[in-house]
Amino acid sequence: MGKNIIVGQSGGPTAVINSSLAGVIKQARDLGADKIYGMRNGIEGFLKEKIVDISETIKTEVDLELLKRTPAAYLGSCRFKLPHADKAPETYEKIFEILGKWEIDCFFYIGGNDSMDTIAQLSLVAEQKESPIRFIGVPKTIDNDLVITDHCPGFGSAAKYVATSIKEVIRDTKVNDMDVVTVVEIMGRDAGWLTGATALSAGTDCSGPDLVYLPEVDFDVEKFLVRVAEVQKAHRAVVVAVSEGVRMDDGRYVCEYFDNDSRRTDAFGHKQLTGTALVLATIIRERIGCKVRAIELSSLQRSAAHLQSETDQIEAFRVGTAAVKAAFSGETGKMIAIERVGGEYYQSAVNVVDVQLVANQKKDVPREWINEQGDYVTQDFIDYARPLIMGEVSLLYVDGLPRHVDNLY
Amino acid sequence: MGKNIIVGQSGGPTAVINSSLAGVIKQARDLGADKIYGMRNGIEGFLKEKIVDISETIKTEVDLELLKRTPAAYLGSCRFKLPHADKAPETYEKIFEILGKWEIDCFFYIGGNDSMDTIAQLSLVAEQKESPIRFIGVPKTIDNDLVITDHCPGFGSAAKYVATSIKEVIRDTKVNDMDVVTVVEIMGRDAGWLTGATALSAGTDCSGPDLVYLPEVDFDVEKFLVRVAEVQKAHRAVVVAVSEGVRMDDGRYVCEYFDNDSRRTDAFGHKQLTGTALVLATIIRERIGCKVRAIELSSLQRSAAHLQSETDQIEAFRVGTAAVKAAFSGETGKMIAIERVGGEYYQSAVNVVDVQLVANQKKDVPREWINEQGDYVTQDFIDYARPLIMGEVSLLYVDGLPRHVDNLY
Repeated sequence: MGKNIIVGQSGGPTAVINSSLAGVIKQARDLGADKIYGMRNGIEGFLKEKIVDISETIKTEVDLELLKRTPAAYLGSCRFKLPHADKAPETYEKIFEILGKWEIDCFFYIGGNDSMDTIAQLSLVAEQKESPIRFIGVPKTIDNDLVITDHCPGFGSAAKYVATSIKEVIRDTKVNDMDVVTVVEIMGRDAGWLTGATALSAGTDCSGPDLVYLPEVDFDVEKFLVRVAEVQKAHRAVVVAVSEGVRMDDGRYVCEYFDNDSRRTDAFGHKQLTGTALVLATIIRERIGCKVRAIELSSLQRSAAHLQSETDQIEAFRVGTAAVKAAFSGETGKMIAIERVGGEYYQSAVNVVDVQLVANQKKDVPREWINEQGDYVTQDFIDYARPLIMGEVSLLYVDGLPRHVDNLY
Repeated sequence: MGKNIIVGQSGGPTAVINSSLAGVIKQARDLGADKIYGMRNGIEGFLKEKIVDISETIKTEVDLELLKRTPAAYLGSCRFKLPHADKAPETYEKIFEILGKWEIDCFFYIGGNDSMDTIAQLSLVAEQKESPIRFIGVPKTIDNDLVITDHCPGFGSAAKYVATSIKEVIRDTKVNDMDVVTVVEIMGRDAGWLTGATALSAGTDCSGPDLVYLPEVDFDVEKFLVRVAEVQKAHRAVVVAVSEGVRMDDGRYVCEYFDNDSRRTDAFGHKQLTGTALVLATIIRERIGCKVRAIELSSLQRSAAHLQSETDQIEAFRVGTAAVKAAFSGETGKMIAIERVGGEYYQSAVNVVDVQLVANQKKDVPREWINEQGDYVTQDFIDYARPLIMGEVSLLYVDGLPRHVDNLY
């Protein structure tokens, strides 16, 4: 009755991607799995047969709890996108050869929409080959841009981190009696979910950011300068939250405002983005003439496990367990999705959905959740995001710092 | 028996500067003070008579506890340095006129070495004028560079934040199987205490940064490139912690490497620093040719009250209470210093010291606490810094975020 499973992690890390890994491990053990293998550096490492026996390092309940509190991908990650099965049959032959050699029954991949494409491809090839191996995707992305699922594990913790950090930055920048514009740049290549989450900071003890710009709306530099000047009339310290991915109406990223020649793309054809906050701060200094500060939250926002959302950590664990249950009950070519259950208070449930519906799709922030002038999110957005940052995780501190599980490498 | 006191905050905020303010308020109340005034925006606001009655906003024990957990300067801050008493007698006339008008008996100023100069000047003028008003300084700076005191409130929390953050950044950057150099820039204009604190991240679950550069040692770009290449032979993801204030042997800041013309100074004659990490990352990309990432921890590191060191918060409160006790017992022209009491385990005590000895002085990291080649701190440094980041503060979370005291403005 023992089954051998293998699990991998892909794409950008999150604060809770290891909580999903812990969910996979725990559920597989509870269901009597034989071997629990991990692929190092995702499918890229798998192709080099970089395979580890997770039971050798994650042994006890304490190891599992520390793993849930450890940021970044425990198994390592990759940015390698599998070619389409028709285009590279030899790659798929190799994958199934390795799967056969290691006697794998179930394959789990924790990642975003590129990873869901990997699961979709592999399950289709398995079907063609009449292989009994099951392939299940486990969602993960701070960008929160997967379709079908209400939200993505990783988003809630990143949202809690950016909202907390901008709340502190706002306090900091208001202490001096001077005109200063602080531009805070938030991750999110195409979708503005995480940038919108900065507005969660607004409350009786915080004004929140003054302006919030998402990539879902074209960015107009002139209109932006007018709005900054308007806010400056109300108070001297202005705080702007902006997505790294905001674009002007000619399609260029704002970070390309000064330099149209520096376009570079990564392996997936995505543009490498950097410096949107710095570009906007420079424009403000030149055109408005006040003191400016550019802050990039950088990789901190996806790795801040010290500020996990408890809701997010629990849900990340649960999609891991649900993936194993689904595979062990015979499902394949599926992803675990989170459904927001109706009712006065937030509740969620997990569903098993067709991974083909998720792969290569992307969910924007609805236009009606952004105000008309395109410089803030609406209450509907806040009502959507608030429950996802609720709750705190008690951490184990050793020598004054959050303790993580020991490195695999 | 009632006394009127006034308290102000100056310079860059810290995560616990308001804990010192809470200490002043609490102790003044306990000793039967009459009016507890706050000056808005430090001595600059005081000169404009921007004075508030703190009892109108900080009323209850809950208010005080929230204040201790609130980052940045509750009363606002300033970067205004009082001219020397001989040079601007009219400014001092005005100050004593306002003090007389508001019937102030004791004056407390929470700040760094520039603020201690303000206390020194004011107490000297008071002596000349035979004024009974007492002036006491309360130390505060994330830079940890005040002399006489073993360490400065604010440093421990900033150190805990940078060590935690770099620990998470290191995890994040090691997930991909590729050559990447991450340069993390830490605040510290002249002293490397906070940059050195990144080494606290090293332990069984973290390798710590690979290289740590403090402004106390001349920075050699060529030697740096050799060291990075050496580390790259051992592992592919290299993490460098660097102070914003590192300088080359010709005296130029590293951030001026590409541009010698952009020197600017602030009101104190300090250079405005920015972009050391970006400069080093650019040099590495050009000369070594691998992927690079520059991370500036920016104002996050001085405002991260969500990660206060309990030791730091308690000591910050205690120097506030001790200042009031000193003033009420007749002291003036003094600063409260922290002494490390001997013994197997860390203990501290507060002392009342002559503020003249502290004003305008600066304490570097001792050269012998930096390794010979100047690219890491020694175990002595770790032993000094470790106790200061110990302990966590339980926060009050509302709507998923740390709750602060309501803004005064």
